[in-house]
Amino acid sequence: MSVKHLGKGSVNPPLEKGKLRLYSMRFCPYAQRVHLVLDAKKIPYDVVNINLTEKPEWLVEKSPLGKVPVIELEDHGTLYESLVICDFLDEKYPERPLHYKDPFKKAKDKIAIEFFNKVISAMYKVHYHSSSSSLSEEHLEEFFGALEYYERELVQRGKPFFGGTRPGMLDYMIWPWCERSDMLKVLGGEQFVLPKERFTRLMEWRNAMRDDEAVLGSYLEPQYHAKYFQSRRAGYPDYDLLLSK
Amino acid sequence: MSVKHLGKGSVNPPLEKGKLRLYSMRFCPYAQRVHLVLDAKKIPYDVVNINLTEKPEWLVEKSPLGKVPVIELEDHGTLYESLVICDFLDEKYPERPLHYKDPFKKAKDKIAIEFFNKVISAMYKVHYHSSSSSLSEEHLEEFFGALEYYERELVQRGKPFFGGTRPGMLDYMIWPWCERSDMLKVLGGEQFVLPKERFTRLMEWRNAMRDDEAVLGSYLEPQYHAKYFQSRRAGYPDYDLLLSK
Repeated sequence: MSVKHLGKGSVNPPLEKGKLRLYSMRFCPYAQRVHLVLDAKKIPYDVVNINLTEKPEWLVEKSPLGKVPVIELEDHGTLYESLVICDFLDEKYPERPLHYKDPFKKAKDKIAIEFFNKVISAMYKVHYHSSSSSLSEEHLEEFFGALEYYERELVQRGKPFFGGTRPGMLDYMIWPWCERSDMLKVLGGEQFVLPKERFTRLMEWRNAMRDDEAVLGSYLEPQYHAKYFQSRRAGYPDYDLLLSK
Repeated sequence: MSVKHLGKGSVNPPLEKGKLRLYSMRFCPYAQRVHLVLDAKKIPYDVVNINLTEKPEWLVEKSPLGKVPVIELEDHGTLYESLVICDFLDEKYPERPLHYKDPFKKAKDKIAIEFFNKVISAMYKVHYHSSSSSLSEEHLEEFFGALEYYERELVQRGKPFFGGTRPGMLDYMIWPWCERSDMLKVLGGEQFVLPKERFTRLMEWRNAMRDDEAVLGSYLEPQYHAKYFQSRRAGYPDYDLLLSK
C-alpha cells in the first residue's frame, strides 16, 4: 500500500486483467474504508495512490470530482463515493457479507454511519485547534458527545463488535477515524485522551479492532497520522512520508 | 395525504396493527421520496403529517433529529433519512423492485442520486432569489449546468425513464424537485422556464413521469408548491394550505 503517490505528468499504469483497482491516498480515511472492505472480503486489488495537491491530468476521467477513493473494474468503468463503493463491494462479492441480512438492522446501521459525520466534523475541529489555545472545552464536548452514541450502541448490542462476533460494515466505516483518534495525544498531550470511564466499551472495541486482520492491512501508528496531519495543516501534505520511514 | 399537520400539544394516533406509518410534511420533497416508493410498491401505510415549526413533543422519540420523513414499523421501531428509508423499503418489499439488480448499475444510480444534491442546492438559490433583482445569470447557470448531467444520462440510456421502461429508484429520488421546477414560472415569470432545446429528453421524461400512477399519488400543481414556498419564505410556513383549498 505504501507506493508513491502519482501526480501531474504521471502515467496511469495499465489495468491488470480481471483485477480491481483502487485509486487511493495513503492517509485518506474515506479511502481507508474501501481498503478495509476489500481486505475483509479478501478481494484481490491493486492500489494507485494519488497526489491530491498536484493531481494527475488523467484523474478526472476516472473521478469527475477529482477525489479519492475511486474503484475501477475492467469492462465496467469506475465508481466513487466511499459508501457507495463499499455497499457495491458487499453486494457484488457476497462471501464474508458485511451488512446485516435483515433489512431493518442494515438500515439502522446505515443511519449510524450517516450520524458518524457528526463525530468526523467535531474531531476535525478538535484536531485543528489541538496545538493552539483556541481549543475549548466546548469543542471536546461536541466530539465526546457525538461519540457517546456509539458507546451506547455497543452496550445495547452486547457484542464485541457492532456487527456481532465479527466486525461488520458499521465497524469498518467508522474505524478510520477511530484509528486516528490517538493522534490527539500526539498532537496535544494527555488531556486529549478519551476518558476511559465514559467510553469503556468503545475502548475494548478499539483494542479488538486493532487485532482484526483487515484492519492490520492498512493500520498506521498514531505518530504517522500525526506527522501527515501536521504536514497538511502546514499546507504541504507529505503524501509519501512513509516511503522515507 | 392532505391531513392536518400535528403540532405542539397533539396526541400521536395509535399505530394500526400491521400497517406501516409515515411521518411526513405535505410539502417536504424528502418525505415525498418515501411516498413515491410506498405508492410505487403499493405498500399499505398511513400518514401522520407534522408541523415542523411547532413540533409535537413526542416527535423526538420517533426521530431524534426532529425531522421528517420517518417511518415506523410495528415491533421494529423507526427509521429516518429519506434514502436509507427508500433503500430499506426496496429490500424489505421485493415486489416491484426499484433499484437495478446489477450491483454496478445500482451503484451508478446511487452516485447520480448523490450528485442531485448539487441540483437541489442550486435550485434553492434560484428560488430564493426569484422575486428579487439579486437573481443572476450565474445562479440559473449553476442550476441548468447541474441538471444537464441528467439530460445526458437519459440520452445515453436511450429509454423513457432512468430505470428503463418504468420509473426506478433514481427517477423517484429526483422527482420531487422536478415536480417543483415549474414553481419558478409561477414565482418569477417566463424567463425561468427550462430551455426546451437544452433539456429535450428531460422534458419528455417529466411529462411521462407526470402520468405515472405513483407520482399521481402525491402530485401537486406548481401553484400550490409556490404558495407554500412563499409562506415559508415569509417565515410562516402554511402547512395546511391545501385543507382550505
